[in-house]
Amino acid sequence: MSTYVYDFIEGDRSRADLLGGKGANLAEMTRLGLPVPPGFTVSTEACRAYLADGRPPAGLFDEVNGHLREIEIRLGRRFGDPHDPLLLAVRSGGRYSMPGMMETILDIGLNDATVAGLAAQSGDERFAWDSYRRLIQMFGRTVYGVPADEFERELAALRATTGPAGPDAEQLRGLVGTYKKVFAAQVGHDFPQAPHEQLYLAIRAVFESWNAERAVLYRRREHIPDDLGTAVNVMAMVFGNLGPDSGTGVAFTRDPATGAPGVYGDYLPDAQGEDVVAGIRNTVGLAELERIDPASFRQLTEIMATLERHYRDLCDVEFTIERGKLWMLQTRVGKRTPAAAFVIAAQLVDEGLIGLDEALHRVTAGQLAQLMFPAFDLAAAPEPLATAVGASPGAAVGRVVFDSAAAAAATEPVILVRRETNPDDLPGMIAARGVLTSRGGKTSHAAVVARGMGRTCVCGAEALRIDPERGEFTVGDRVVRAGELISIDGTTGRVFPGEVPVQPSPVARYLAGELKPEADRLVAAVHRLLSHADAVRRLGVRANADTPADAERARRFGASGIGLCRTEHMFLGDRRELVERLILADDPDRLAEALAALLPLQRADIEGILAAMDGLPVTIRLIDPPLHEFLPPLAELTARVARAEALGEDPGRDGLLLTAVRRMHEANPMLGLRGVRLGLVVPGLFGMQVRAIAEATAQRVAAGGDPRPEIMVPLVADVRELAAVRAEVEAVLATVPGAPPIPVGTMVETPRAALTAGDIAAEAHFFSFGTNDLTQTTWAFSRDDVEGSFFSGYLERGIFAVSPFETIDATGVGRLIRLAVAEGRATRPELTVGVCGEHGGDPDSVAFFADAGLDYVSCSPYRVPVARLAAGRAAVRLTGPGSDSR
Amino acid sequence: MSTYVYDFIEGDRSRADLLGGKGANLAEMTRLGLPVPPGFTVSTEACRAYLADGRPPAGLFDEVNGHLREIEIRLGRRFGDPHDPLLLAVRSGGRYSMPGMMETILDIGLNDATVAGLAAQSGDERFAWDSYRRLIQMFGRTVYGVPADEFERELAALRATTGPAGPDAEQLRGLVGTYKKVFAAQVGHDFPQAPHEQLYLAIRAVFESWNAERAVLYRRREHIPDDLGTAVNVMAMVFGNLGPDSGTGVAFTRDPATGAPGVYGDYLPDAQGEDVVAGIRNTVGLAELERIDPASFRQLTEIMATLERHYRDLCDVEFTIERGKLWMLQTRVGKRTPAAAFVIAAQLVDEGLIGLDEALHRVTAGQLAQLMFPAFDLAAAPEPLATAVGASPGAAVGRVVFDSAAAAAATEPVILVRRETNPDDLPGMIAARGVLTSRGGKTSHAAVVARGMGRTCVCGAEALRIDPERGEFTVGDRVVRAGELISIDGTTGRVFPGEVPVQPSPVARYLAGELKPEADRLVAAVHRLLSHADAVRRLGVRANADTPADAERARRFGASGIGLCRTEHMFLGDRRELVERLILADDPDRLAEALAALLPLQRADIEGILAAMDGLPVTIRLIDPPLHEFLPPLAELTARVARAEALGEDPGRDGLLLTAVRRMHEANPMLGLRGVRLGLVVPGLFGMQVRAIAEATAQRVAAGGDPRPEIMVPLVADVRELAAVRAEVEAVLATVPGAPPIPVGTMVETPRAALTAGDIAAEAHFFSFGTNDLTQTTWAFSRDDVEGSFFSGYLERGIFAVSPFETIDATGVGRLIRLAVAEGRATRPELTVGVCGEHGGDPDSVAFFADAGLDYVSCSPYRVPVARLAAGRAAVRLTGPGSDSR
Repeated sequence: MSTYVYDFIEGDRSRADLLGGKGANLAEMTRLGLPVPPGFTVSTEACRAYLADGRPPAGLFDEVNGHLREIEIRLGRRFGDPHDPLLLAVRSGGRYSMPGMMETILDIGLNDATVAGLAAQSGDERFAWDSYRRLIQMFGRTVYGVPADEFERELAALRATTGPAGPDAEQLRGLVGTYKKVFAAQVGHDFPQAPHEQLYLAIRAVFESWNAERAVLYRRREHIPDDLGTAVNVMAMVFGNLGPDSGTGVAFTRDPATGAPGVYGDYLPDAQGEDVVAGIRNTVGLAELERIDPASFRQLTEIMATLERHYRDLCDVEFTIERGKLWMLQTRVGKRTPAAAFVIAAQLVDEGLIGLDEALHRVTAGQLAQLMFPAFDLAAAPEPLATAVGASPGAAVGRVVFDSAAAAAATEPVILVRRETNPDDLPGMIAARGVLTSRGGKTSHAAVVARGMGRTCVCGAEALRIDPERGEFTVGDRVVRAGELISIDGTTGRVFPGEVPVQPSPVARYLAGELKPEADRLVAAVHRLLSHADAVRRLGVRANADTPADAERARRFGASGIGLCRTEHMFLGDRRELVERLILADDPDRLAEALAALLPLQRADIEGILAAMDGLPVTIRLIDPPLHEFLPPLAELTARVARAEALGEDPGRDGLLLTAVRRMHEANPMLGLRGVRLGLVVPGLFGMQVRAIAEATAQRVAAGGDPRPEIMVPLVADVRELAAVRAEVEAVLATVPGAPPIPVGTMVETPRAALTAGDIAAEAHFFSFGTNDLTQTTWAFSRDDVEGSFFSGYLERGIFAVSPFETIDATGVGRLIRLAVAEGRATRPELTVGVCGEHGGDPDSVAFFADAGLDYVSCSPYRVPVARLAAGRAAVRLTGPGSDSR
Repeated sequence: MSTYVYDFIEGDRSRADLLGGKGANLAEMTRLGLPVPPGFTVSTEACRAYLADGRPPAGLFDEVNGHLREIEIRLGRRFGDPHDPLLLAVRSGGRYSMPGMMETILDIGLNDATVAGLAAQSGDERFAWDSYRRLIQMFGRTVYGVPADEFERELAALRATTGPAGPDAEQLRGLVGTYKKVFAAQVGHDFPQAPHEQLYLAIRAVFESWNAERAVLYRRREHIPDDLGTAVNVMAMVFGNLGPDSGTGVAFTRDPATGAPGVYGDYLPDAQGEDVVAGIRNTVGLAELERIDPASFRQLTEIMATLERHYRDLCDVEFTIERGKLWMLQTRVGKRTPAAAFVIAAQLVDEGLIGLDEALHRVTAGQLAQLMFPAFDLAAAPEPLATAVGASPGAAVGRVVFDSAAAAAATEPVILVRRETNPDDLPGMIAARGVLTSRGGKTSHAAVVARGMGRTCVCGAEALRIDPERGEFTVGDRVVRAGELISIDGTTGRVFPGEVPVQPSPVARYLAGELKPEADRLVAAVHRLLSHADAVRRLGVRANADTPADAERARRFGASGIGLCRTEHMFLGDRRELVERLILADDPDRLAEALAALLPLQRADIEGILAAMDGLPVTIRLIDPPLHEFLPPLAELTARVARAEALGEDPGRDGLLLTAVRRMHEANPMLGLRGVRLGLVVPGLFGMQVRAIAEATAQRVAAGGDPRPEIMVPLVADVRELAAVRAEVEAVLATVPGAPPIPVGTMVETPRAALTAGDIAAEAHFFSFGTNDLTQTTWAFSRDDVEGSFFSGYLERGIFAVSPFETIDATGVGRLIRLAVAEGRATRPELTVGVCGEHGGDPDSVAFFADAGLDYVSCSPYRVPVARLAAGRAAVRLTGPGSDSR
């Protein structure tokens, strides 16, 4: 026969799979000798058996009874004893914390008989009847789904008739009678009087709540397996509501907001835990506890010190003081803000509790990214209008607009405020500084699209009643009209009225070299951990940069080179006219002339970047987009010409352009004449670029510099394409005096390049994965087209855990990457392999790339520190547990 | 020391790698005891050594001299003997026949001294001097690259002064003097008099011709490896030009045009082989040889019978008769027309020379495809205007147009005639019946695009002088003006004036059940081989069909089911209005109404197809294209609205549509909201289709039919997408009374579906590779955009051997297919795996699919017989040599 039930003393925190997180930590505290009320845990295995068979496994309740008897013996009280009853608390507790499941039933064991015993034993009849009515309400709601309102209505009616002191014992006894009637009417039978029946039903209800709709939905979104099951913790009741020498509280071993050392928490005298959660009365600080009950306070701080030494991390606890006796009800490693995470990790190293490797596990690169955003000056901020889901970080200030057309037409910064967004809102979202919606969460259309564009976004602000027709929204009785200023914080989800001043991030200033590491505690912690990450990481971090200014910024942020320098930006702005000449060239001579005119411009651009990155590699990608992208869009031009013709006017140059645009129009430009194809089809185009690179390099060498250009060929799918370009490159290089040899490599951004990487490596000095395009082609969707159209639905259905454009799809795209790395290196062991898609700056993706054995990632300059930290974490992760996403 | 030189008696045909094709077959004939002039072969290994080191390998010429001595002994003549000289012919001969290489130098060993010996020995002074001047000319041209014109000019000048009898011996001796001067002037030194020097130089020249530009280009295009090298055949000269009892000819063991039995060939009395090739004089039939020299004729027919028995196939030979003595100079398995291939293969089976399996190797599925095209009635055809490259098969008749706009505007059938085509010509190519160009070959833009569209095309008709400005083309002095009728044969490359009557193909009529197998020899042969293919093939052949008429046709052509029934065609035509309602539906009720209106139409369509394919599987694909494809294009609509607005008119419904089109516009619709994504985003769309299928099936069952529908989900990239659709399918099926269970499977047409096939198979009853989309995404190019823009360049550069849209790219796309088959079957061993892209009808691709272990291919109804034959060939190929492309 299996064992399904474990006394707290039998478990430990390593058994969270079996005991759930809460049960495992209760066991850990019990083993440490801390004052935990006696109790036991019904294992997740029992839950799984129950869910599989639809009934409790054989012997389960016998085991429960056995353990219950142990508690009775230890406490000298019997469950159901009408004179001095043992009461129980039942709490669910799975491996992962999970909203939507039944959580707690207190006071199990009370009935019409034992209520008198509780009154006698506590000497507080009012307390006893209040406990009984709490049990009926909680039991009815969580075991039988009776709406809380059905009970609350009666309580409110009673309260309306009583003074500020509240109902007395007699009134509460009457309320229990009313509650029992409500229960019977709603459930169809009387409230169960047998204490054991109450307990068994409570345990079954916890099991069944595993499959409650909200729980299933939550698991699907969070990718928690459906077959884990939950544990059930059964514990002797202790009471914080037995008078002024009782109370309940929560505490942290350090300040979870700033990381400042010292115990930190809230206390509520004469109250049960759920009163703290319900926020009915205001809590006081722990200092007040120290004043009221110095012994308990001292014991609590000692216990918390023990826990922190034991867990070697910030812990939070729930505790209750029953008539001067301290009981620990829960502990866990506590949540903290990003700033606190860095500060605490550095402190724990100082205190000798953890080493620097482990400290890297205590922070995430995502937290570092959050610390780099400018933030609102909270000292100067008013009360928020609302707090909702921070869906895309940043601090945005703008005037309220309610429709996309208005946003797109606005000349001042605006915040687009919508109930929810849809693909029609894209132009408005592009034009706005931020987006605020009243519906939807982190996977809503607004959230997905805003994150994709890097726009600040707050979602699901349900407190807002938005009325676009009237051009206003209301929060409570406050009205905000179109054109008024608001400020939204995409990190915390807060919405402020008016313009809140924005403070630059000290971390960003430090990273840019504007602050010394010792400037403050946070910056010092960031400096320390980032330095360690740099020391341990095997993955290089380069930046994607197209201009000398970007290159310099990247260098300050710690980039060890440029992994992607796009040459096409050098075709934009006032050079468009030259590009138009190139495109309209209708014979080889004019084509050559147009290219010759572009040569000195490209050369100067490249020389600037090589100078900014002197001594570091600069990977220069030959032109990638289709040429027609440099011309006006077809529909726009068609309309202009149609209008001119309808009015009998001469469309002029537009007519000429329209002919070219029509000829070059592509149904799917992403899959069209671009990249290496363009280079092989337009004679001299790549040659001109290679000449510009070679001449710029030669000039830098002549000037005493140390230029290290690399030439990268985009969109290769077959080794013969690369071989043809390489031949052209070598031919050009041979004609430029003073140009050193320049490595030639390829983007790996088509599935076929990855699948034939072994062949391609024969012609490539390096590979660089273009993970944006590789994701698009591997999944067969283009970011431009689908992120706004179906990604939110896919995220909600759980088809994506996260957008594959944010975090690399390790299963599909990642398989191609691993394959290409292995087969490329088999052909050419010294092959350098990097990644230059946007995933290069995503922490979870960086961890994947480190594991896949890449040499470097390349990302936007602002993400360089994030990638450095992620790479350091990945390096120490390879020898220990932990992932960036936890 | 290696052996580099092999006497003919030392080799055999299995050693073609070492001896080249020609050398191996000469050896084979020698071993059969046939009258081959004595000789030897310098191996490809010697050539490779020469090319690697830049000089002949040590001992090569010693070996040559040794073998030469053998010949001298055998013939009793010495090389260089001024009285009775042995003369030699030197011929190149690699593993594969290869134009662009040096081919032949005859009469090596003649010089100022031996010419007299030849005159004395032959008794023909004129012949001797003529041979000498031929040697100088051939040697100069092939060893030193002296332009042929330099010599021809002198010969022509001499001929102008002589009568019809031609120059006499004295005049030819004078010409030799002139030739020697030309040689010295062009080469820089005198014509080499030493016979051995001539021989060595000739051998070196053959070696070096391996790297001649044309040879390199040819190899690149044909994907012949560059490192094979060529062999050199050295053979004692025999002379067909020693008077009326001499001559030369070529012969086939059967008629290579029709396959009719009996020796067939051409003979030219008193001539050398190159005179036949040059076509200076008209040849006579072999019957004439029988009259002139019955003994030689008898010997020749016996030899050819021996060769055919020995090679068990049609052979062709070159032979020379020297004063009544027959010499065999070359043999090989002969080329033949598609019709002859089938007829001969069947005859060889009848004659017991080969079995049916081997007979399948003697034909190709591509030949069967050619036999299915209608052809011009050649009996009724005039002399062709020109014969050029047949680039895309078919017989097209139409009026000449010279520009695409005219073609697009034409109301009668037209042939587009261009010097060459470019992407601007696409609309014209779509509108025309056929395309005729004067430049470019099988890889030109015109050829590639025409094949992609199935348009008849003749390319590279260099005889045509096309003058679009004057609206005419000329061939010689014949002028053809715009609007005149011409007929072009895309199979043979012939261009006829006027309208040539088109005959339906008897093979196609047989396949469609309109002719009995015994109708004629060709049809009987096709029937026999195709029946055998059906008997041996393990690969099923289904058809892609969307209508009952197509389904019936496919069934007649031997399809064992429908592998792809596209439901989107059911949204076209007069149902567009319903689809517009669907798209414009702005609330769930209107959407449901629009879907309900489509339901009965879909149901009726599907019932018709299920009826036509009763008892056979019908794979019905849920709607795949993006919905906006059912609306007018954005540019067109924008122009209409712009025009209306410019004129102050109300754009009406166009305005409404434009809003929808703008909202749904996609930059890359191929990678947009389509397939399973559309099904998951538009509520009820797939559900309506599934209901239509289920109800149609139930009706067929009720009517006593045996419907076997399968539901196929397009564009799946993740198993969760498929799981979501399956859940919806099951839910709908449960509500349709009388509907049997229907298998649900998926297209595998995204790289990710292939990469995660092991997961996806858990939810799929079957896979069907959509190789069009899979090719597009694996290579990252869309057929619509690139086939006309850079494919011709890629084919010419040898980056593609053949368009990956014609023949499956086995390296890249094929790797994904093999991986998906293996991992899908690992999850679900009974998984059915097919292919429904256009590659399903391409013979080489079918061979790949058979090898990859697929269960069936599906192709257009007309390709079903082709796929059946290819599948049969693949089945026997797996146990023997041969491929469809040779």
